[in-house]
Amino acid sequence: MSELLLQRLERPADGAADKNGAHMNRQLYEIIRQEILAGSLVAGSKLPASRLLAKEIGVSRNTVLYAFEQLLAEGYVTAASGSGTFVSQSFPDHSALHTVRVRSGTMPVLAAQQNQNRFALSRRGQHLVSHSGASDRQWGAFVSGVPDVSLFPHAVWARLLNKHWRAPKPELLTYAHNGGYLPLRRVMAEHLRLVRSVRCEPEQIILTTGIHQAIDLIARLLGDVGDKAWMEDPGYWGTRSLLNSAGIETIPVPVDSEGLAPDAATLQNPPRFIFATPSHQYPLGMVMSLSRRRMLLEYARQRGAWIVEDDYDSEFRFEGRPLASLQGLDEHDRVIYMGTFSKTLFPGLRMGFMVLPKPLAPHFATGLSELFREGQLVQQAVLADFIEQGHYATHIRRMRQRYAQRQGLLREAIATRLGADWPTSTHEAGLHMVIHLPPGADDLGISMAARTQGLSTRPLSRYFADPARATNQGLLLGYACVPDDEIAPAFHKLAEVIEPALEHLARTQAPRRAPAAGINREAWSGA
Amino acid sequence: MSELLLQRLERPADGAADKNGAHMNRQLYEIIRQEILAGSLVAGSKLPASRLLAKEIGVSRNTVLYAFEQLLAEGYVTAASGSGTFVSQSFPDHSALHTVRVRSGTMPVLAAQQNQNRFALSRRGQHLVSHSGASDRQWGAFVSGVPDVSLFPHAVWARLLNKHWRAPKPELLTYAHNGGYLPLRRVMAEHLRLVRSVRCEPEQIILTTGIHQAIDLIARLLGDVGDKAWMEDPGYWGTRSLLNSAGIETIPVPVDSEGLAPDAATLQNPPRFIFATPSHQYPLGMVMSLSRRRMLLEYARQRGAWIVEDDYDSEFRFEGRPLASLQGLDEHDRVIYMGTFSKTLFPGLRMGFMVLPKPLAPHFATGLSELFREGQLVQQAVLADFIEQGHYATHIRRMRQRYAQRQGLLREAIATRLGADWPTSTHEAGLHMVIHLPPGADDLGISMAARTQGLSTRPLSRYFADPARATNQGLLLGYACVPDDEIAPAFHKLAEVIEPALEHLARTQAPRRAPAAGINREAWSGA
Repeated sequence: MSELLLQRLERPADGAADKNGAHMNRQLYEIIRQEILAGSLVAGSKLPASRLLAKEIGVSRNTVLYAFEQLLAEGYVTAASGSGTFVSQSFPDHSALHTVRVRSGTMPVLAAQQNQNRFALSRRGQHLVSHSGASDRQWGAFVSGVPDVSLFPHAVWARLLNKHWRAPKPELLTYAHNGGYLPLRRVMAEHLRLVRSVRCEPEQIILTTGIHQAIDLIARLLGDVGDKAWMEDPGYWGTRSLLNSAGIETIPVPVDSEGLAPDAATLQNPPRFIFATPSHQYPLGMVMSLSRRRMLLEYARQRGAWIVEDDYDSEFRFEGRPLASLQGLDEHDRVIYMGTFSKTLFPGLRMGFMVLPKPLAPHFATGLSELFREGQLVQQAVLADFIEQGHYATHIRRMRQRYAQRQGLLREAIATRLGADWPTSTHEAGLHMVIHLPPGADDLGISMAARTQGLSTRPLSRYFADPARATNQGLLLGYACVPDDEIAPAFHKLAEVIEPALEHLARTQAPRRAPAAGINREAWSGA
Repeated sequence: MSELLLQRLERPADGAADKNGAHMNRQLYEIIRQEILAGSLVAGSKLPASRLLAKEIGVSRNTVLYAFEQLLAEGYVTAASGSGTFVSQSFPDHSALHTVRVRSGTMPVLAAQQNQNRFALSRRGQHLVSHSGASDRQWGAFVSGVPDVSLFPHAVWARLLNKHWRAPKPELLTYAHNGGYLPLRRVMAEHLRLVRSVRCEPEQIILTTGIHQAIDLIARLLGDVGDKAWMEDPGYWGTRSLLNSAGIETIPVPVDSEGLAPDAATLQNPPRFIFATPSHQYPLGMVMSLSRRRMLLEYARQRGAWIVEDDYDSEFRFEGRPLASLQGLDEHDRVIYMGTFSKTLFPGLRMGFMVLPKPLAPHFATGLSELFREGQLVQQAVLADFIEQGHYATHIRRMRQRYAQRQGLLREAIATRLGADWPTSTHEAGLHMVIHLPPGADDLGISMAARTQGLSTRPLSRYFADPARATNQGLLLGYACVPDDEIAPAFHKLAEVIEPALEHLARTQAPRRAPAAGINREAWSGA
């Protein structure tokens, strides 16, 4: 394989290699892909280890990692953890198959491709799988979005489970209907009114398996194929995947220090949906300003758009009072509020909720039954007890202190290692933070290299949908599920990956530009 | 309201009322709907009780029930159990609003309608909600599709839950990935190979929250908007709802005594998907013949279609050996097999599985993570133990005997009351049976009248998508969740509703025709 790649790779002029990093990445990916499609790399064969291959063909390891990750995302190769990377048994890409077929024109290849074609995904399926963002690591430094589940009061939970399983009511073991267990919806309504200033009655609450199911319901019950949704850019990839796979076109809208910031041209084309994270912009952490909130509410009222408020981790605000929900400001029933227990309790619970305008609630209850045939009423009953007996409030209070402390430890480690003025995201809230990297840095490459050291990070550039903004480089670091005493050591290990990459960048690159909009410009002085 | 209806209802010629039952039903529905849209019946106002209204305007109660049910399904009215039927705050029907607006032309009505329009569902949302089939009753005589959850060995389950909750591994509390908990997929693979002759490795199994999630994944990962799916007619309404809401066009294909029976014209237009219930046709109960199985497999191979085998209750076969799965006969990887624990354990568990051809499995695991962010790993671990320790096999064996006995009791009651040769569905398997009714009977009206007596049944006609076949009348009766000694009394209570309706039919109707295809013609001699 190395010989083949050495023959085909076009080298940049001597010394310019790193300026053309992106080109090399793309080229290597393209050559390997073509060889797989042409059958020179046969299904099931093992690719060389990235480190070895990089050395043999004289490119950076990140270039190889980029190519492999891209091939993996598109289904050309599969990775078996520990045992390496293998050419897939099937390839999802119709158009690519077609291209090669025309070019090669040989019968055996054609037959092999037809065989692959039998397993082709749909267009939307290909899009979904090739843009997937879910990681196979869900625990440890620095997985983001996962709370410290080891501190969940499991003994209390087990006791409540036991109580309900001692003599379970048959009604709680069958299918749910009407949006879920009413006593839970009652305590939730009270909790949301009190803590988030949400205006709601129990009848407006629909229990879901989480934010994903809520988004899916919204997209299907209120959206048709071709409808448009504004999404914060950067934003949560999962929302984009769900909306796109339901045929909704997502329009990336930039954010600034006040939150979602549509420009005049964007405002000319009112969308069906406006998805936003007003309490804690995901992933950058800003709070939407009051004037921006009012503007959005008035715009939605005038244009008949739906604002979907994703209040995914508002419970974990460390400084100042938590802001009221956007829903609570809305006087014209244009906001759908979504929340989850994944961050406050544990993700595996699969429980979340939505608060709907009254006229929509019965339709959503019907849609939920029809599409998902929901159940889990025993679990809902356990959760109702858990909240009612005060365990929920206690647990959140304890976790808030703990996460504030962990964020502090991570900030200390960053300051010690990279300097006190290294640019990072805001620090009032949340389960993760972002450290920014200078323009031209390769956050994907750094993230993949970190992974080989057992560290999970997420490259910030991948949260942008607009290519012009995807030049923003940085890393998301989740600190919530890392024990206090492991935070500094893990960050120092990560710095061992970051520092050489940045030194290399500094040597090869022109003086850096200022960071793009939405990022704390004043603080930018690191690297 | 009665006066208004009396004025507008067009009466058939004297004595011909019952022949025109369908017309009266439709007319009453249409008048009430128009009055709601015109604002004569204002939002929030209560409709008279059906019995009272029927008496006052001189139509049958079934006519009123039909109109109310239709208005309810389309969202014009809402029903609060126990307190009556109310005009909705919002109406979903765009086109209807438009019609009225043009005709009335008055400003106040227009403003009111625009206000309603603010809460309009999407086209697919309207379709989904107005065709919904999920019931709010999930327990008691004769709810179909629900097992006897009161006999579930809850003490064993609670003990296993306790074991896993004593010191839960953090990894089991976070998000799942890769298709779910591997030890469960291992024991499942073994079970399916042994019991259902499914050819599979653990890597081919993806754990889902049930059949609905499996169908949704298939529709989105392998289907695009406009793709076609064959569905058995009659068939499960839930499959149709899911496919339609994912933009897949469903083509109703008749069934005969050998199962799915596409005619020559249908075969000329190969679909992307063929959905079938080969082990136990839903809801009629036939087993797909071997020759039909071979035909479908060969057709799917030649045309590149996917056969989706819904093996929803194959464990409960009372006579003869259970047939092997269709998947086990397939030598060309064209079958996707789906199963559920809703019938064998309890529906509220929300756990099912699919077995995929190897090249598809990794893509489905990715799609599942991306669309649903699954979890519930503790529950999956408990279920793995439950199966491995033999409790699953024991429970199925006990339930099989119990359900066979209950089916026997129901058959006895039917024979005693309606005669030994009353036509019913096959009796080898399942959790429900169908009693057929003579042509011209109003199974929907009977079912709604039975509901007022606290009895849940489902009208067979509603399982047909093709209007020509929807003339087949009958009732689905679930016997699995009815205690032995309540079966006969409940059926006699049901007969009190059926008999007058049929006597009435006999008096007013011409000599009856033979029942349509797919129904046991020889046995037809009742009524």
